[in-house]
Amino acid sequence: MSIASEHSLCPRYHRAVELVGKRWTGAVVRTLMGGPRRFNELLTSIPGISDRLLTERLRELETEKVVRREVKPEAPVRVVYELTDRGRDLGPALDEIARWAERWIDAPPAH
Amino acid sequence: MSIASEHSLCPRYHRAVELVGKRWTGAVVRTLMGGPRRFNELLTSIPGISDRLLTERLRELETEKVVRREVKPEAPVRVVYELTDRGRDLGPALDEIARWAERWIDAPPAH
Repeated sequence: MSIASEHSLCPRYHRAVELVGKRWTGAVVRTLMGGPRRFNELLTSIPGISDRLLTERLRELETEKVVRREVKPEAPVRVVYELTDRGRDLGPALDEIARWAERWIDAPPAH
Repeated sequence: MSIASEHSLCPRYHRAVELVGKRWTGAVVRTLMGGPRRFNELLTSIPGISDRLLTERLRELETEKVVRREVKPEAPVRVVYELTDRGRDLGPALDEIARWAERWIDAPPAH
């Protein structure tokens, strides 16, 4: 990569890093890689996240066009969250971070 | 990946994401991929970072054993920062984030 393109990438890279690097963002996106999920399904499949934090992260991810909120016209109405193309394309980056964590960060003590 | 291993990875993944996702961390590590650098070389090759923030990030990266501070026994003494094996192995993750940013985040307006 040339120095010029590296520098023009800089602000975009910062935005990407701040998006990916936010606590729980990776967990939410990784869970949605498995397909659309309802709010409560996300809440139970991400151990440790709170109702308030999940709401906050989903709103940010919707603003960034990484996640889409879909209202299914059924009775009763069903609301699901799903990844956009932009969101799905985060897969390789999140996988590489997970691979690095698995290799270099010590496992927490068993309990 | 099984659900069990995904959950045991969770705290490690959070630590990795918080490390990688910190503003400027990626820029510092990416610059050091080119080889050892002195403090002032880092400062000039990362546009926008301040003296204070660079010092802070380098200390964090040393604590995380991603960066090593080396004092070269020359006259005058030369201090350089270089990546450890653990740091060098962050390359693929940072490259994937950069690739995503390049593809999905709009370029900032030219100035």
